[in-house]
Amino acid sequence: MTVRPTLAVVGATGAVGTVMLQILSQHADIWGEIRLVASPRSAGRKLTVRGEEVEVVAVSEEAFDGVDIAMFDVPDEVAARWAPVAAAKGAIVVDNSGAFRMDPDVPLVVPEVNPHAARRRPRSIVASPNCATLSMIVAIGALHAEFGLRELIVSSYQAVSGAGRAGIETLRSQLAMVAGTELGTSPGDVRRSVGDETGPFPAPLALNVVPWVGSLREDGWSSEEMKVRDESRKILGLPGLKVTATCVRVPVVTTHSMTVHARFEDEVTVDKAREILATAPGVVLFDDPAEGEFPTPADVVGTDPTWVGRVRRSLDDTAALELFVCGDNLRKGSALNTAQIAELIASEFTA
Amino acid sequence: MTVRPTLAVVGATGAVGTVMLQILSQHADIWGEIRLVASPRSAGRKLTVRGEEVEVVAVSEEAFDGVDIAMFDVPDEVAARWAPVAAAKGAIVVDNSGAFRMDPDVPLVVPEVNPHAARRRPRSIVASPNCATLSMIVAIGALHAEFGLRELIVSSYQAVSGAGRAGIETLRSQLAMVAGTELGTSPGDVRRSVGDETGPFPAPLALNVVPWVGSLREDGWSSEEMKVRDESRKILGLPGLKVTATCVRVPVVTTHSMTVHARFEDEVTVDKAREILATAPGVVLFDDPAEGEFPTPADVVGTDPTWVGRVRRSLDDTAALELFVCGDNLRKGSALNTAQIAELIASEFTA
Repeated sequence: MTVRPTLAVVGATGAVGTVMLQILSQHADIWGEIRLVASPRSAGRKLTVRGEEVEVVAVSEEAFDGVDIAMFDVPDEVAARWAPVAAAKGAIVVDNSGAFRMDPDVPLVVPEVNPHAARRRPRSIVASPNCATLSMIVAIGALHAEFGLRELIVSSYQAVSGAGRAGIETLRSQLAMVAGTELGTSPGDVRRSVGDETGPFPAPLALNVVPWVGSLREDGWSSEEMKVRDESRKILGLPGLKVTATCVRVPVVTTHSMTVHARFEDEVTVDKAREILATAPGVVLFDDPAEGEFPTPADVVGTDPTWVGRVRRSLDDTAALELFVCGDNLRKGSALNTAQIAELIASEFTA
Repeated sequence: MTVRPTLAVVGATGAVGTVMLQILSQHADIWGEIRLVASPRSAGRKLTVRGEEVEVVAVSEEAFDGVDIAMFDVPDEVAARWAPVAAAKGAIVVDNSGAFRMDPDVPLVVPEVNPHAARRRPRSIVASPNCATLSMIVAIGALHAEFGLRELIVSSYQAVSGAGRAGIETLRSQLAMVAGTELGTSPGDVRRSVGDETGPFPAPLALNVVPWVGSLREDGWSSEEMKVRDESRKILGLPGLKVTATCVRVPVVTTHSMTVHARFEDEVTVDKAREILATAPGVVLFDDPAEGEFPTPADVVGTDPTWVGRVRRSLDDTAALELFVCGDNLRKGSALNTAQIAELIASEFTA
């Protein structure tokens, strides 16, 4: 009989944590004990996983006793504090925060793209990418394997749940204020109606789009735009890859979308690209505009794959493709990729 | 005393026509008689312009008697039928439809960018561009004049009023259905709630974005994407300009937004680009993310200029700039540009 590894889920009570518990319940036969860990504030709460109630324990050194793999979905500073503690106690940490993603001794892993990278982990920490990067990287990785990627120019249409429960509640509250009105037709009327209720966002999201995600970096770039650039390079193993992102928040609850201009080493064909996307693990090709078939976030939400549509070859560049991709930012964009990495490592225990 | 020219407004009763009458009222001293022309169905209705009620007359050859300039905002096939009639009666036509934009004997004019083009009009017809092109072309034209444009890669965030009153009503009705619910979290839940009420759109817009605008052209491109390409080339006088557009509809009432990757002949600097954008006619530079300053459609709606923010130089290409632009699709994107062309031509009458 194989002993199944013990899993700790750190940060089980957030928007991503809720989805994580659903995913763990669907993949019920992988794990031995599943221990739920959270801040002392949440300790004692009972959450359901694999059909059973489990009591949340407060994070502490002892919480990692006997843990084989610890998945972290907590703010960067909490991960920076506790992931090394879990690692020192012998656990392998799979971290979904930004704290370790660019550490050269921490692999950044997307199981469909660079599973081999997860094996070299000198700090016993493996990082999962940001949700914006994950919204397109599985599809891009498959195309890169065939064509050799040179440049990415992407624009995002990011859902409010990327900002957690507060993001979802803010949009819902704003929509309740604007529904049934004639707002959205004179300068600032939405802003006046919504008032200061912009929650985690710098401007109203109802009847609006906001070209800002994250915090300010050098030369006017946002942290989210730099993450897409830095993480894509690291995952694909292309440190010199040209990457330009403009990240925009839209009034969608969950599922990020992205337009992608991808330039490759040599000439590409749409037929070959479609063949690759139709057969790549974790990708669904949904692309027949004549039949109204293209992915939209409202149709993709709640599903696991990266959906790809609007596949075209650039009219002025036979080496470039245009795509529209959608991926659930709470599933593949966060919880699912973290779970997949943990399962990849768990397979080492039973191999 | 100067005789002021007689203006006919053909298609005065639509979403754009309503904005046009506001603009004509604000620019009240340009025109002599203003005649309102529409389909026989709308004849006899009374609309207010320059503070006076004017009765709408049915379109006919006689409706153009004595007209100096006729502005058309009607479907392509109606423009194709009636613009040549007005021209034959001696009027100069300013047409906002797609019927004549790519005709080599019809100039396509943006007064801030190529006013000289309006003087060569062998068919007595001058065309105004599509709203998506107009959402960015004034800013791009100003940068082109300094730096020399080589390539545009743009992604749009287009408002529902681009599809007229039906577009606005569809979004409002859908928002009333989803507000106060927990929709947007499982596959297709928005679509099931909205049902067949997608109006002029191929998918729900509430809590969604839809990567399709217009009709299907060759190789999977949409008509809107081809318009951005063809019209940008014609307006800028750059028939070989590389242009790639991906057009996406978003749940915003009015004002199109666009991310722009613009590559120029030589190295550019953000300082010089900002100086150009800060002084270009018809452009407002609004770009200080540290202070939360970037344009959003809810703030820009109802204003005349093209608003530009998020100005960055590409990290991998010293000859390329990244921008986020917003323009009211019913004002500069339609009625205002048409009115500006008509005023440009009217100035010939009084010069």
